[in-house]
Amino acid sequence: MIGLSNYASVMESLQNSAEEHQYTFYQDSSRPNKQESTNNSKPGVGGFVLVHAGAGYHSESKAKEYKHVCKRACQQAVDQLKAGALAVEAVAAALVELEDSPFTNAGMGSNINLSGEIECDASIMDGKSLHYGAVGAISGIKNPVLVANRLLSEAQKGKLSAGRIPPCINDFFASFLVGRGAHDWAISHGVPPCPSEKMATKFSLSAYKRNKRKMELAEKMDPGHNQAKRRRQSSRNENCSECLDTVGAVVVDMQGNVAAAVSSGGLAMKHPGRVGQAAHYGCGCWAENACNMNPYSTAVSTSGCGEHLIRTMLARECSAAMQSEDAHQALLEAMQNKFISSPFLASEDRVLGGVIILRCCRCVEPQPSTNVQGSLVEFLWSHTTESMCVGYMSAQDSKAKTHISRLPPGTVPGQSLAIEGGVCRLVNTVD
Amino acid sequence: MIGLSNYASVMESLQNSAEEHQYTFYQDSSRPNKQESTNNSKPGVGGFVLVHAGAGYHSESKAKEYKHVCKRACQQAVDQLKAGALAVEAVAAALVELEDSPFTNAGMGSNINLSGEIECDASIMDGKSLHYGAVGAISGIKNPVLVANRLLSEAQKGKLSAGRIPPCINDFFASFLVGRGAHDWAISHGVPPCPSEKMATKFSLSAYKRNKRKMELAEKMDPGHNQAKRRRQSSRNENCSECLDTVGAVVVDMQGNVAAAVSSGGLAMKHPGRVGQAAHYGCGCWAENACNMNPYSTAVSTSGCGEHLIRTMLARECSAAMQSEDAHQALLEAMQNKFISSPFLASEDRVLGGVIILRCCRCVEPQPSTNVQGSLVEFLWSHTTESMCVGYMSAQDSKAKTHISRLPPGTVPGQSLAIEGGVCRLVNTVD
Repeated sequence: MIGLSNYASVMESLQNSAEEHQYTFYQDSSRPNKQESTNNSKPGVGGFVLVHAGAGYHSESKAKEYKHVCKRACQQAVDQLKAGALAVEAVAAALVELEDSPFTNAGMGSNINLSGEIECDASIMDGKSLHYGAVGAISGIKNPVLVANRLLSEAQKGKLSAGRIPPCINDFFASFLVGRGAHDWAISHGVPPCPSEKMATKFSLSAYKRNKRKMELAEKMDPGHNQAKRRRQSSRNENCSECLDTVGAVVVDMQGNVAAAVSSGGLAMKHPGRVGQAAHYGCGCWAENACNMNPYSTAVSTSGCGEHLIRTMLARECSAAMQSEDAHQALLEAMQNKFISSPFLASEDRVLGGVIILRCCRCVEPQPSTNVQGSLVEFLWSHTTESMCVGYMSAQDSKAKTHISRLPPGTVPGQSLAIEGGVCRLVNTVD
Repeated sequence: MIGLSNYASVMESLQNSAEEHQYTFYQDSSRPNKQESTNNSKPGVGGFVLVHAGAGYHSESKAKEYKHVCKRACQQAVDQLKAGALAVEAVAAALVELEDSPFTNAGMGSNINLSGEIECDASIMDGKSLHYGAVGAISGIKNPVLVANRLLSEAQKGKLSAGRIPPCINDFFASFLVGRGAHDWAISHGVPPCPSEKMATKFSLSAYKRNKRKMELAEKMDPGHNQAKRRRQSSRNENCSECLDTVGAVVVDMQGNVAAAVSSGGLAMKHPGRVGQAAHYGCGCWAENACNMNPYSTAVSTSGCGEHLIRTMLARECSAAMQSEDAHQALLEAMQNKFISSPFLASEDRVLGGVIILRCCRCVEPQPSTNVQGSLVEFLWSHTTESMCVGYMSAQDSKAKTHISRLPPGTVPGQSLAIEGGVCRLVNTVD
């Protein structure tokens, strides 16, 4: 990757221009007619970002807001890429935008827990160093992803002094901090605090009050009912359909590095201290640059029911699957065998989650030239939830494309899946 | 497994009776001459437990205490097994004994963090249900493993009502709670609180004071030195060699179910809120009963440098490797390729950790009989640290065997490894 000066990217042309994405296919259909790539390469700075605003259910009325925030998040990442930032910085920039939206369940506007507090989870992984940073159940911080990113960069600094310091000492560079300790560490590292009441929104507060009333009512009606059951019943509607809107992003930069991140406010009325998949290593996000063993760089971010994503380690499983030649087929099999039919979720009637994936490899140019190198970026998303909101953009695009992916009519959420995606060619000239 | 009434187990006889374990071999030696199994079966109740009191460095003076606690932990598990308990209950009983010892870095006597507090991590996994429970950075609880176990059993209860309750609602049965929220949940579920000052020991307090003095001295000598570096330097000796004594256990019960657990006080002078491998899914422990895809039931518990164990997901990797026919060879390759030479630890000079493993399969009896069924339990441990203290016992043994495994003289910790283990035949009569 040394000596690259310029990248150009071009999205494949769409025969069906009404579709915002390159190809669409579902589990029950035959393989898609993948559009032929048009080699409309323009040299320039490069990179690609794919974001999600959650796998769950997105009503038409909400769709507009979700699309808007995805668009802005893509733009933030692309601005970083154009300024020469690495993938990990660009992915963090996308996440900050997603967290700052009051419509998403991450950062501002996060779900409120049983105690009336906001506790967030977030993590980030750098495919180049394979380092990881995560925070769990952190309060009073507007952008949890920035704390995760700071943990990651502190760990990377630690490595630089590995020669002087006994190796296990880098253990001090904790990759995962939780609760009050995570908050204090963030403040001492210059992350600004944000009062919880400023992070709550009209929507999250009214949902909290509604849930609280339902719980109190259930308590009056049936005092023998235990608290957990009341919590479950009271917030059934809140959590099962609409409130799975964890956010995430995956990025490849102009040097071919990948990174992934995820952030979540967790479930409404969750028990304080609960940590969901967004902070779990291997479950919320994953990124690995190509290496001797792996021809593809891969980055994954997940969303959905935390326990389902944790117990199947879905991010890491999808990343591993992406080393097969056929990305679509590999993702289909991974979602079917490692998620919907996973032995770890054998007792579940419905398995709810979604993933966004980037994979990238060097590719041969149609007109071979010593000063042109190309990368092929495949971007995919798949979900078993009713819908998933995604956005994507290459550094050559003037604006992001967004899409609400939905299960085919008549299929059952948690038992069926949708897979969509596209291909983007990054071309770079070498001085 | 239905219809079993009786189990008998017999340890293979040892030709070299001076050795406490069945076979010993190191990375640099040829394959061992595995002792022939003597079929000295006695019907009775069955099951097997293997425990560890940490991979790190065990001085001769400490060895006696570590062996004692391992012995008692084995006995606790076997008492449970004899009373008909499932593997998951037996493994929790072993952990309670290990946590209660003031000599181990778990529960009582845990390392003290930077703020002078004790924060513990623990997790438990049931190979039958594939459920998992974990707590991170929990204070004021003498036996963190009991909270993890309670979370696991609450999750299992949740499954029973899956038919009535929308599936994602079982998300409320958080598998992972941290910090103050975990403490409060534990208390509300009947786990008794224990003041932190009662959990500190003379040894942990004096280590804390020593570290604190060193940090203050470093601050005076070099005010520009940042806090993280001071912490690293001050506790170099505490953490690098002696204080990796996380505890853990793996159990197979008379029905052939496996379970695994792990518990740790974490690093001395760690940042508050730091969560180590003992609470990380897939990293601290793993258990999977045999199924259609997997001929062997496997259970794994790890110890060592948290970051190394987390980033390589060592427990899960070892469990997956154990589906190969040759357990010793599979473990050797896993420790070499997935740990010491892992791309995730490429920047580390030395990779420090250890594992204990049980694997179990149905086996053909030498004298086939319709009312006799047998299981073969292979138990192994491997470490890259200077030493690892283990204990093991079958339900037919009158007392546990213990052993301090050490790297061969002249080999380098973190770059070499030791593997040892044995075989135990469980024979059960069927009424």
